[in-house]
Amino acid sequence: MAPVEELVAAVLAGDRRAIARVLSLVEDNGESAHRLLAALHPHTGRAHVVGITGAPGTGKSSLVNALAALVRRGFGGHPPRTVGIVAVDPTSPFTGGALLGDRIRMRELAGDPGVFIRSMATRGSLGGLAWATADAIQVLDAAGFQVIFVETVGAGQAEVDIARTAHTTVVVEVPGMGDEVQAIKAGILEIADVFAVNKADHEGADRTAMALEMMLDLNTGPQQVVHHGQLMVVAAPPPEDAGKGKGWRPPICKTVAVRNRGIEELAQAIEAHRAYLQESGLWQRREEERAARTLETMLQEELLRRVVAAHPPEEIASLVRQIAQRALDPYTAVQRLLGEVPPG
Amino acid sequence: MAPVEELVAAVLAGDRRAIARVLSLVEDNGESAHRLLAALHPHTGRAHVVGITGAPGTGKSSLVNALAALVRRGFGGHPPRTVGIVAVDPTSPFTGGALLGDRIRMRELAGDPGVFIRSMATRGSLGGLAWATADAIQVLDAAGFQVIFVETVGAGQAEVDIARTAHTTVVVEVPGMGDEVQAIKAGILEIADVFAVNKADHEGADRTAMALEMMLDLNTGPQQVVHHGQLMVVAAPPPEDAGKGKGWRPPICKTVAVRNRGIEELAQAIEAHRAYLQESGLWQRREEERAARTLETMLQEELLRRVVAAHPPEEIASLVRQIAQRALDPYTAVQRLLGEVPPG
Repeated sequence: MAPVEELVAAVLAGDRRAIARVLSLVEDNGESAHRLLAALHPHTGRAHVVGITGAPGTGKSSLVNALAALVRRGFGGHPPRTVGIVAVDPTSPFTGGALLGDRIRMRELAGDPGVFIRSMATRGSLGGLAWATADAIQVLDAAGFQVIFVETVGAGQAEVDIARTAHTTVVVEVPGMGDEVQAIKAGILEIADVFAVNKADHEGADRTAMALEMMLDLNTGPQQVVHHGQLMVVAAPPPEDAGKGKGWRPPICKTVAVRNRGIEELAQAIEAHRAYLQESGLWQRREEERAARTLETMLQEELLRRVVAAHPPEEIASLVRQIAQRALDPYTAVQRLLGEVPPG
Repeated sequence: MAPVEELVAAVLAGDRRAIARVLSLVEDNGESAHRLLAALHPHTGRAHVVGITGAPGTGKSSLVNALAALVRRGFGGHPPRTVGIVAVDPTSPFTGGALLGDRIRMRELAGDPGVFIRSMATRGSLGGLAWATADAIQVLDAAGFQVIFVETVGAGQAEVDIARTAHTTVVVEVPGMGDEVQAIKAGILEIADVFAVNKADHEGADRTAMALEMMLDLNTGPQQVVHHGQLMVVAAPPPEDAGKGKGWRPPICKTVAVRNRGIEELAQAIEAHRAYLQESGLWQRREEERAARTLETMLQEELLRRVVAAHPPEEIASLVRQIAQRALDPYTAVQRLLGEVPPG
């Protein structure tokens, strides 16, 4: 196996096989993953990370394809840039087929050395998937890809977690959603920086755009996705005007991805959001929030690992069994594991 | 303020005002929450916790109402029992209106002293909501409610987390779902112990039931929701035959909740699942998984609290800033916080 330094050098040089290999190592979260990510870390922070999220059937993949092709060509004063695509399906093994179909549609981009596509699927743990996605973004960022699209399916905590990793989140809707579907997706409004009403050649596109405008009017402003982590509260408390809706109202772009309509307007809206983040200082803030989250998670994992290592498995299993049998409450069990009350 | 002991005694005696007060204290997660939960813990573990989940508009609330009324009356050899209802809306502040509507529909049950209803809404953190729900269940369990229904909206990580807390999870579908909607909900199949096809007097109920049967056929068996926590791996490793689909295939019940049709069949299916859990030893296993999860979360919170308390806030903020600026990698920052490398 190539030593970590060689792999890192190859990734930084843009070697596609090395990138694929490091992505796999990082996804497996094995022994070398931490060392690889630590070595890549100084070389990250340059990419614009753009999340694209929406229900199945909204045409997210076509939209990502069209955006990626435009970014590769350059548009409206923006020079051609390289593109990374991370496609995440947190819903289920059942949707594996659909995801595969999406990947096949992406083949047109796959021959371009300035594009790197990576698919990720759930491996039992949604929380783990969000972290694996964040790590994959770091690898592509270090490898020099300038715009990284992260495509996720559906609505839920996994999307919220993944959106936290993006600088700019595009929420994709389609015409003809019923009110019920609106409601189920309401949570996603809180993470939207830009809306795309895709398939805008279908009936009802104007009505959908209007419904979104109304929801934005009702809202007090783009809500902050609040992170309640202890470290975050200490290290990066929310600014006083957080959630008061200053500065940015998510624009609503009508697109027809398969006909390449409205794509440049959408790309311009994404660029406008990037400029807004940078001018307002929010870019730096999002980076700090991400740093605090990463540090907190890694710290907790390491602390837990040490406690687990310091006790025989039978002791831990016995504590768990006693809690389940209500012979011991979990608060006392914590104190026992930390050596503060004698074992029972 | 009443001391913890008085409140606990009042909850155990079934005092409704004390229950409401403790639920609020626990939800706010304040100083006394841990002590209250620790004192209640020995008195928990008797209730059958039944999760009811599905998209908005599937009639979950009516279904819960009808099931609750039936359980209160007794049915098919089961004596009358008391009922707790925890209604959770993890999607958004936007759906507050719908949730309120559901609560109004529940008024028919609200005069019954053998029924306790509690609504919970998101307060910024979905993870936090799942924990608050688990705590609320503990309180109602300790207060002696025998069957606790937990009603949640939508599909996503929050539902999966909440389902982990239930012994039996009922997934509610309605006729006429398109394939796309099926796909978005696929993740939820993995948590289903029982299916209800509600509004079964609408066209397409048989087709929906058949589609569910087919998905169950395709599946290799009711999937284990895998928890990757370090503690769990040590304390409660999955049994060898996990996920091989032995023993239980989720039954599919057609219901018309508003006309009280099919409710007894659904209630019997829920009882059958409870019997299956108890006879197979899975009841105990689910309790142990829950205990391991609780212990792990509380341990991590406590360990993190100590590290945060041991460092001045400016030091932590400085580490976070350095990570965000790529002057320091998070792995080294963890080692610094644990005193293993000198501060930079």
